[in-house]
Amino acid sequence: MAGVSQSAVSRCFTPGASIAKETRDKVLQVAAALDYRPNVYARNLITGRTRIVGVVLAHLDNLFYPRFLQLLTERLQSMGMQVLLFVADGNRQVDLMAQLLNYRVDGIVLAATTLHSDLAKACNHAGIPVVLFNRVPSHALDRAFHSVQTDQSAGMAELTRLLIKRGHSRIAFLSGHLESSTNQARELGCRATLEKAGLPLFAFGVGNYDEVQAASVVMGWFHDGNRLRQLADCPDAIVAADDRMAMAAMDMLRHKLGLRVPDQVSVVGFDDVPQASWPAYDLTTYAQPLPQMIEAVVRLLSAQLQARDANQDPSTEGQSVVLKGSLCLRGSVRARTGHDALPTRTRKGA
Amino acid sequence: MAGVSQSAVSRCFTPGASIAKETRDKVLQVAAALDYRPNVYARNLITGRTRIVGVVLAHLDNLFYPRFLQLLTERLQSMGMQVLLFVADGNRQVDLMAQLLNYRVDGIVLAATTLHSDLAKACNHAGIPVVLFNRVPSHALDRAFHSVQTDQSAGMAELTRLLIKRGHSRIAFLSGHLESSTNQARELGCRATLEKAGLPLFAFGVGNYDEVQAASVVMGWFHDGNRLRQLADCPDAIVAADDRMAMAAMDMLRHKLGLRVPDQVSVVGFDDVPQASWPAYDLTTYAQPLPQMIEAVVRLLSAQLQARDANQDPSTEGQSVVLKGSLCLRGSVRARTGHDALPTRTRKGA
Repeated sequence: MAGVSQSAVSRCFTPGASIAKETRDKVLQVAAALDYRPNVYARNLITGRTRIVGVVLAHLDNLFYPRFLQLLTERLQSMGMQVLLFVADGNRQVDLMAQLLNYRVDGIVLAATTLHSDLAKACNHAGIPVVLFNRVPSHALDRAFHSVQTDQSAGMAELTRLLIKRGHSRIAFLSGHLESSTNQARELGCRATLEKAGLPLFAFGVGNYDEVQAASVVMGWFHDGNRLRQLADCPDAIVAADDRMAMAAMDMLRHKLGLRVPDQVSVVGFDDVPQASWPAYDLTTYAQPLPQMIEAVVRLLSAQLQARDANQDPSTEGQSVVLKGSLCLRGSVRARTGHDALPTRTRKGA
Repeated sequence: MAGVSQSAVSRCFTPGASIAKETRDKVLQVAAALDYRPNVYARNLITGRTRIVGVVLAHLDNLFYPRFLQLLTERLQSMGMQVLLFVADGNRQVDLMAQLLNYRVDGIVLAATTLHSDLAKACNHAGIPVVLFNRVPSHALDRAFHSVQTDQSAGMAELTRLLIKRGHSRIAFLSGHLESSTNQARELGCRATLEKAGLPLFAFGVGNYDEVQAASVVMGWFHDGNRLRQLADCPDAIVAADDRMAMAAMDMLRHKLGLRVPDQVSVVGFDDVPQASWPAYDLTTYAQPLPQMIEAVVRLLSAQLQARDANQDPSTEGQSVVLKGSLCLRGSVRARTGHDALPTRTRKGA
């Protein structure tokens, strides 16, 4: 009816395919009149491509991952690809990932979670590219996987050096999940910097990336159950493994313990979630370079898919991309007592 | 190889299908040995079901929608269904929705967005059930769509009555997007309650659900460009159309204008996002009943799909589910001056 070849019609419905504008307009007009829509699944049986990327997230209760999800989805959409979303923590992961393979996704992005080794094997076997986001490959099978992350250890070292420079000597580390690779790298960055400066880690507590547990650790550091401890016996700075725990620590210090941040205690976090720059917190933190991280994820996925389409062997060795973030100097760290200038504040928004 | 019928194998790979545990275990073992996976798309060409629900969101920069997405995804996963995610605002919506139809999703959930009328027609025609989340059908074609929402107007009326009861008489409304149905209902609830009490709306400004714009409206109400206005000429209470704008208003009042909340100005929001209960804000707000809303969405989708599977005509009249939320009394509204008791505070978490 459109008077064009079958392959021209096909190209009209293939995102990114080469087709003259007039031809496309004519075909789409006829398609609308006939109520024709291409069946992407029938096409998939022929091309072996679904244009679907499976994204597995453990949780969305921290604004870092919703931002990641929004940016990644928008970026993939702009390439004519869609996100099939899986929310998985621990036990249910195996079942969910089996579903994910059944949907024959073109690729998998794993954020804030690691892959069960059976499924890692299955993905490798099926030639499905996997990119780990903010996780490092944790066992031998993962070696074939790509990963994208911020240099967590360097970021935490930079925050710790800032605290030392501002005269802090009783620095405490508020840890996330002990088994998470992000937490391990962040803790290492803090500990190594203290050691280099000849300072001990003054206190250590596990908040498990949870606001209630983080607040309870901070309570224990400053309060003996009956009364506030002498401040000289408490941390003078808290390094939290993420922004959410840092903000929970600030709330506990200010609103439950009646202490002043940063005058009496400095607090730093990690991630630079949107709330970190809200004036109520004005949190000094380390920003993960999210847009560049998304670009790296997309680049790694695309390279694997192109290799597959060209019938090249996919590389068996995963590529590990480590990106540098940036320090966000705000108001939750005290200026050095004495003649040092006040910190330059950088804020987002208002 | 498993010594069972083809239909038994099929049932092993169909979520929720009836099959003996021993049979299922045996089949899955053989399938693993053979590296067999069912192709859901080939199956889809026969059954006409993809077990994929398209979810369209306009943005994730407000914690209400990430929570919604997480709960909805988990609920659908538990039924063996998956979420294909689309992030769409305004212009790009038409293209994206065309993609969504090409993927032959079993249903569509539209959150925080409305459907372009051409696509509404296409969904109706293709018999794809659509549920509007927190939006009301806005044009004639939408009538066939189901919708699930909180009784926004009743919620805002309850918050406004609280402010009046606590002695406020200069109440301002900080509006979201003027064209959004949620904002219209919330504004109506506030205005109608004031009118009933014989009070004027003291001030009105449009924050467009954006923190920077909201802060700027509040600045204008309290500051003439040179100095703070007399408090008697300013609002004594701010009703914000959502929590995010309410928190931006509190930050502006406290950290830029040096005013005390709630002593000098009371602030209320709407949604009860997780941050509303953080001690730095302790925001009095109206909670949307998210778990019940998710159940209603799933129930409406399932009923339509069952009708389709049974070859019944889908109902042509959409069902509109309106759920009651609940007032969250916290610390951002002043106690009534005089002999009234202090408000009971309810907090989440710590």
